[in-house]
Amino acid sequence: MAELILNRGAERRLKRGHLWIYSNEVDTKRSPLKGMAPGSQCQIRDSQGKLLGTAFVNPSQLICARLLSRKDSFTEVDVSERLLSALKQRQRYFDHPSYRLVYGDSDALPGLVVDRFGDHLVVQVSNWGMDQYQQVVVDKLIELVQPKGILLRNDHQGRAIEGMPLVNEVVYGEVPELVPFEENGVPLLAPVHQGQKTGWFYDHRENRRQLNRWVQEKRVLDLFSYAGGWGIQALANGASSAVCVDASQQALDWCKVNAEHNNFSDRLTSVQGKALDVLKAMVSEKERFDVIVLDPPAFIKRRKDHKAGLAAYHHINELAMRLLSRDGLLVSASCSMHLQSDELVDCVRGAAHRLGRRASILASGGQGADHPVHPAIPETNYLKAHFVHLG
Amino acid sequence: MAELILNRGAERRLKRGHLWIYSNEVDTKRSPLKGMAPGSQCQIRDSQGKLLGTAFVNPSQLICARLLSRKDSFTEVDVSERLLSALKQRQRYFDHPSYRLVYGDSDALPGLVVDRFGDHLVVQVSNWGMDQYQQVVVDKLIELVQPKGILLRNDHQGRAIEGMPLVNEVVYGEVPELVPFEENGVPLLAPVHQGQKTGWFYDHRENRRQLNRWVQEKRVLDLFSYAGGWGIQALANGASSAVCVDASQQALDWCKVNAEHNNFSDRLTSVQGKALDVLKAMVSEKERFDVIVLDPPAFIKRRKDHKAGLAAYHHINELAMRLLSRDGLLVSASCSMHLQSDELVDCVRGAAHRLGRRASILASGGQGADHPVHPAIPETNYLKAHFVHLG
Repeated sequence: MAELILNRGAERRLKRGHLWIYSNEVDTKRSPLKGMAPGSQCQIRDSQGKLLGTAFVNPSQLICARLLSRKDSFTEVDVSERLLSALKQRQRYFDHPSYRLVYGDSDALPGLVVDRFGDHLVVQVSNWGMDQYQQVVVDKLIELVQPKGILLRNDHQGRAIEGMPLVNEVVYGEVPELVPFEENGVPLLAPVHQGQKTGWFYDHRENRRQLNRWVQEKRVLDLFSYAGGWGIQALANGASSAVCVDASQQALDWCKVNAEHNNFSDRLTSVQGKALDVLKAMVSEKERFDVIVLDPPAFIKRRKDHKAGLAAYHHINELAMRLLSRDGLLVSASCSMHLQSDELVDCVRGAAHRLGRRASILASGGQGADHPVHPAIPETNYLKAHFVHLG
Repeated sequence: MAELILNRGAERRLKRGHLWIYSNEVDTKRSPLKGMAPGSQCQIRDSQGKLLGTAFVNPSQLICARLLSRKDSFTEVDVSERLLSALKQRQRYFDHPSYRLVYGDSDALPGLVVDRFGDHLVVQVSNWGMDQYQQVVVDKLIELVQPKGILLRNDHQGRAIEGMPLVNEVVYGEVPELVPFEENGVPLLAPVHQGQKTGWFYDHRENRRQLNRWVQEKRVLDLFSYAGGWGIQALANGASSAVCVDASQQALDWCKVNAEHNNFSDRLTSVQGKALDVLKAMVSEKERFDVIVLDPPAFIKRRKDHKAGLAAYHHINELAMRLLSRDGLLVSASCSMHLQSDELVDCVRGAAHRLGRRASILASGGQGADHPVHPAIPETNYLKAHFVHLG
């Protein structure tokens, strides 16, 4: 097996439990990255030659290797064992088989995501290394879960960056356009074929659960609603109305489908448009809501976007607050890994201050238990939601 | 009214919404602190003479002034309005009148804590300024809540540091030794007269609620149990057994009272002793638990204790982990304001690493909604609890 030798000291992060190796940490004089096949395995050694483990390699990436094992090999048996371990962990903490079954590095399966919607599974493979185990993964999932169907959603941006082909296909059984599942006890339908990512954002499950306690008879505004994760659950928990806003008419159609599925279409309004435009129009029309959910896509995708992204969070939080009634509740969320929780608190602080409103943070949440944080990999912890009471 | 003039630039924190003024931020040449009466009010001005607001002052403290108002006065009317505002906020977010009704700075009432146990209130006043409004507070609480009794628990360390007399007395109606309340639907009794602080630690309410979902048929170890906040609720949620450990026999007696109150004394064991000693003995006897709650008192009380305290957190997390069965759940908590959440994650990471166990963090929680975080005052955010699955 090929070897990568690290620069002196570059083993420190790995020794603390992290799994990523950056290309500038490799001693390329002793072990050239050039010419290594993307997805091939190599042994990682420190500058003294001591074995650190086995990794997938991709010479063209900034993260040029991802550790798979602390031993000198990684095989199909490891993949199978880790899938079983991930499943057991989910079964231990969830009552209903609706969850992210595999969350990449946190489940020791770099480059693999599997979302389970009851009897249907959606699989995403995002690096060349894991790509070679795709069939092993599918076969093992069939054995473990006996699903009705498995959809491969390999059409995401991450693959394009790795130079991998984009594919979206059913690789086992049948997968309908909309698959039934539930979240926080609410029956829902996920558009797994056409929707964003795997079709649903399970990561906010616990934050929605928190909000569900506080929506009784409230007028709710759900910004960047997608298929209605927040708004539909709010209606199921007694909200008097929900207005879902999304730039995509298709997303809003899925909101409607989910509202019909729960028999409360009469309380749902959908507004198609860019959130900023819709917010501005609502401000000028002096609309007011009791609860506003602000759950935008990542404004900071790369570290260098930090300044502009932070300004965007400040701006949109203030706009949203302008629509919030006195003693209202703002849920301010961010899925930007590069935005610190404290920075989002500061957006809320600044916006409230400028508007002369007293803000207090009632709760702060992150990802649900099916997106476990790896304690040595801060990058696995990306989600933030602050529940802010505004006087 | 007396004035305090700040050094140039020292107004920045206040302008961002913070309420504290440190003695080294005062231009003592222009406005000597010396001679000002503790608890008196003064106007705060920036170096240009611009009014920043009105504050309580205590010349002998590091935090020599606490902002009360952005205006030129602060009166009994403000106290009454803020009490009403705090009550309304709690009523909006809680179903049952068991909560912290006033949380100091976050409720714009510096130095005041009020815990509500249904019909009984416990009040703590911790600075000379608020001390002068004690009767106003008591009268207003009677009007707002119509309690059966109000207990003044002014016997805590914070008062001694301010040079205030220590008092523990019923100032209205009657307050029994053990007052009934509930937390997460579990009926409990709080030892308000003799217990720690106000008699109960409401701050972990949401973290206990999280744990309650994951204890069914589990053997639970509750370290630093006090009156059983975690252990008793775990039993009420189906834990097969709970072992409460505390250095105080009295605390364990309260655990027993709470177990009897819920009719499950047969599933409770109490062990009197220092947690470290008990943990070591259990390790040598190879005891194992499915769920361990590690909720110690603050190991880092002052910033200068950081290094020693951090080492203590590392040590006790590792000891606790040794008792955790395979695929067990550790709740690792800290109430040290000076310990960052990431530092506690690192204690967990390091301990798991040394023991060769895979750790994943399923959830991370903070204070409940009755201890709201003031977005401009990071010091109001002190509580951390990580839910760690260990393979």
